[in-house]
Amino acid sequence: MNTSVVSSSPWLGDIQWNSEGLVPVIAQDATSGRVLMFAWMNREALAQTAASGEAVYWSRSRRRLWRKGESSGHVQRVRELRLDCDGDVLLLQIEQLGGIACHTGRESCFYSVLREGQWVPVDPVLKDPEDIYG
Amino acid sequence: MNTSVVSSSPWLGDIQWNSEGLVPVIAQDATSGRVLMFAWMNREALAQTAASGEAVYWSRSRRRLWRKGESSGHVQRVRELRLDCDGDVLLLQIEQLGGIACHTGRESCFYSVLREGQWVPVDPVLKDPEDIYG
Repeated sequence: MNTSVVSSSPWLGDIQWNSEGLVPVIAQDATSGRVLMFAWMNREALAQTAASGEAVYWSRSRRRLWRKGESSGHVQRVRELRLDCDGDVLLLQIEQLGGIACHTGRESCFYSVLREGQWVPVDPVLKDPEDIYG
Repeated sequence: MNTSVVSSSPWLGDIQWNSEGLVPVIAQDATSGRVLMFAWMNREALAQTAASGEAVYWSRSRRRLWRKGESSGHVQRVRELRLDCDGDVLLLQIEQLGGIACHTGRESCFYSVLREGQWVPVDPVLKDPEDIYG
């Protein structure tokens, strides 16, 4: 992959990056339609995602590119990339390898539901995080 | 609705608001699973959303609460509220009145797909924006 060529692609210039040079990204399971996670990309992460066909995010806490699945093996194969009407949010249709997107070992990061004034975890842990990252 | 009571609800305190006091929100059609839009809420918007059962966002451009559908009639009835693993992103399962979430008159704001290096609008305009807002 020639990153310098990819990064200068015109479609990357259509994106309204925020003041930190980032864009919010929603990852949705291409088959089930379940929203799996939310993360951020910078220009380089998006260029690498498009070039490789696998999701690469920008980790704001670690301040580095984060190839999803690099430690867990839970790679996200990208089937489709969509941009919203304002050009400032991305929606990825993905195939989630291992069926687990969340670092807690659940399918989706959105596993807590508001019920009677409390956030209640309602989805099962599919794999012990220690077995994923240990 | 007693907003002062609602705003002090403990579940609101579980949310990791960003430095601007906002949280990103994904609105998904509860029936089709389609991701319809992405917006932001502050504490008051979320309190009003939970109390009324209809989505209220914080408009960053207008710097005011924005009851979705207040001009268009395209109200979003909230069926479920989910919080992600880090407590800093919300996912709403909604019923989209009028079947249109986007100000362009389309069902979803995510109507442009990346194809051969270009963002291509692929979804139909269901209603002329002039007929919605005019």
